[in-house]
Amino acid sequence: MARIVQKFGGTSVRDIAHIRRVAERVAAEARAGNEVAVVVSAMAGETNRLVDLCTEISPLHDTREYDSIVAAGEQVSSGLLALALQQLGVTARSWLGWQIPVLTDEMHGKARITSIDATELRQRMTAGEVPVIAGFQGLACGGPSRHGRIATLGRGGSDTSAVAMAAALQADRCDIYTDVDGVYTADPRIVRRARKLQAITYEEMLEMASLGAKVLQTRSVEMAMKHRVRLQVLSSFADVPGTLIVDEDEKVEQEVVSGITYSRDEAKVTLIGVPDRPGIAATIFGPLADAGINVDMIVQNVSEDGRTTDMTFTVPHSDLARATDALTALSETIGYARLVPDENVVKISVIGMGMRSHAGVAQRMFKALAENAINIQVISTSEIKISVLVAEQYTELAVRTLHSAYGLDHL
Amino acid sequence: MARIVQKFGGTSVRDIAHIRRVAERVAAEARAGNEVAVVVSAMAGETNRLVDLCTEISPLHDTREYDSIVAAGEQVSSGLLALALQQLGVTARSWLGWQIPVLTDEMHGKARITSIDATELRQRMTAGEVPVIAGFQGLACGGPSRHGRIATLGRGGSDTSAVAMAAALQADRCDIYTDVDGVYTADPRIVRRARKLQAITYEEMLEMASLGAKVLQTRSVEMAMKHRVRLQVLSSFADVPGTLIVDEDEKVEQEVVSGITYSRDEAKVTLIGVPDRPGIAATIFGPLADAGINVDMIVQNVSEDGRTTDMTFTVPHSDLARATDALTALSETIGYARLVPDENVVKISVIGMGMRSHAGVAQRMFKALAENAINIQVISTSEIKISVLVAEQYTELAVRTLHSAYGLDHL
Repeated sequence: MARIVQKFGGTSVRDIAHIRRVAERVAAEARAGNEVAVVVSAMAGETNRLVDLCTEISPLHDTREYDSIVAAGEQVSSGLLALALQQLGVTARSWLGWQIPVLTDEMHGKARITSIDATELRQRMTAGEVPVIAGFQGLACGGPSRHGRIATLGRGGSDTSAVAMAAALQADRCDIYTDVDGVYTADPRIVRRARKLQAITYEEMLEMASLGAKVLQTRSVEMAMKHRVRLQVLSSFADVPGTLIVDEDEKVEQEVVSGITYSRDEAKVTLIGVPDRPGIAATIFGPLADAGINVDMIVQNVSEDGRTTDMTFTVPHSDLARATDALTALSETIGYARLVPDENVVKISVIGMGMRSHAGVAQRMFKALAENAINIQVISTSEIKISVLVAEQYTELAVRTLHSAYGLDHL
Repeated sequence: MARIVQKFGGTSVRDIAHIRRVAERVAAEARAGNEVAVVVSAMAGETNRLVDLCTEISPLHDTREYDSIVAAGEQVSSGLLALALQQLGVTARSWLGWQIPVLTDEMHGKARITSIDATELRQRMTAGEVPVIAGFQGLACGGPSRHGRIATLGRGGSDTSAVAMAAALQADRCDIYTDVDGVYTADPRIVRRARKLQAITYEEMLEMASLGAKVLQTRSVEMAMKHRVRLQVLSSFADVPGTLIVDEDEKVEQEVVSGITYSRDEAKVTLIGVPDRPGIAATIFGPLADAGINVDMIVQNVSEDGRTTDMTFTVPHSDLARATDALTALSETIGYARLVPDENVVKISVIGMGMRSHAGVAQRMFKALAENAINIQVISTSEIKISVLVAEQYTELAVRTLHSAYGLDHL
């Protein structure tokens, strides 16, 4: 007997027929003698529909109202799944964020969970009831509880709800059911010979999530790592083993490289003719940080004349306009000659715990790309990943080339 | 300066353009120096969509889950209207039933409001904030408040929410904005010369609502009468005066008859050859009452042979199958010869406070119908209304004839 949290994404509950199939899966786990709690996303398309309604009224909307509106999606799907479970003879009830409560901070639209009181849920699970929890939502509780407002956790937040719930329930496992059947060595839509990983470490998954793999929300992985929640990613549609996300020492076989990711959500900014003096980086990046713009890769060219240099960095695609506006306003303070924005870039990353103990991993990457005449524009590395920025048209070629170069191809 | 509750129905908030127009109307009232609270229904079609989802999963569903699901409609519309008001520079926030809280009993699906704590709302209104309250919903609070469940008040329940809120806020007026511009002497789709009433008494409105006029939920009128809430029915779309629902002594001009209504939601059952013995009515109607079937008009024929009689009564159309099932099962106990159901009937009613002090009102009705060869099947009367059951094909003819006979035609 185990205590399990199962999370189902929007495509898994996209209509009544799918909700019925999810209910069958939950019922099977419960009938096998396990204590089960379910976390559910909104029916596919519903969150977008609600976000669009908000944006149509007001592009810069009050995020507290936005949260109350978009949280309605999970309110509907959790109720429907509870009904479907009852139809199968399973004792079940829906739980909204404010009912449990799942308390959050006041950062509406991208709130963070601060605490979960799982006492009542745990008692009911022991008594054989299946709680069906609305994902993505919590209660931002400034004042007395009944005046609290609904807060949402940001897109993909139901993953985080599920992991937080698993931690609060001290669950043995948190199963994330989605429309892919696990974590792959690369996006299978690009690399036909990509392999599904049996297991991956938290650290690798964290890098993969933040470097472009869309299978899990980054924050949910952070939280699973922190609370040592055993995560599993698997398919709602196929009955095949998924990918386990585990501690490093639980992973028997450790490849040098576990996966190749790409992210098109990048834009490059180059400042040409920047005065080469101490403190210039702070002059440039301070105002960007103040504007809430997250600068990722940075490279400062070697100054040829000793007086000026070029500075290149990347920002999220959606922040490019604000970044160029901020820097144009500062052109005299910084004293650069020219600003060159470039949206035609992609970040390709190679990720693997094994990198720490293997030399030549980066070298193999640079060589493989060079052999295919792919020019590297910026490089950034960490202990377990190497990322390069290249022109966007090389996305597929670069990912496939590296997948082969590191011996990841399925035979 | 007045304190006003404005209620907008589903067609008034059916899309973003309409929500904007509603916001303009609320803003105008607030800018005129009034304290305004708004109660809002779900966007037109949304409640039906959610009800259909529930029914698709399970026709006999857990009403607690049903309530949580369908209440999402008002959660969305209240948030959107709050955003639209903010866009116009009005300080506004949405309020869900559990946030206020609006407490109800545990009769999920058709709950009754037990209490409303309007302290916080009143304070904020005094400070210039407009609360936008999700209608139709409350919190059924069995145990500790955070484990309470969402409860809904039944179809049309937002009218009741608005009146209850007006009572709790001690509002000077409760304006019900809808897709008609007031209460008419008869359905204008049938009687072209129907007149809009400037004012009508609570008692008359209550009879009209329960006898077929769809403009207000019956329970909301009861509640307005009990708490002496000044109600007004008016159009969201046209800027014309509506109909005031008032105390009898506030109504200056009192017609004998205020309106003619019809209800097609009737079915007639005749039991032929019922033994004419004491207690027979209890034998028939007891089991129907136990099955929750509401019997309306009843007529027992004079027994010709002193041994058997015929018994005729009406039930709601939707209960006819259950009523005939129950009576068929009891055929031996009751001992009737034959059961004749008839769905081809309509109830036509004439309503007016003036009836109490005028003789000949019923006589005029019977005469007018007879002159048009409309046969009366059953009659029932109260102090301020006369209802007759006639064959359904006479609906329009009967309503028009009576409208003229009582001098209600618009000149």
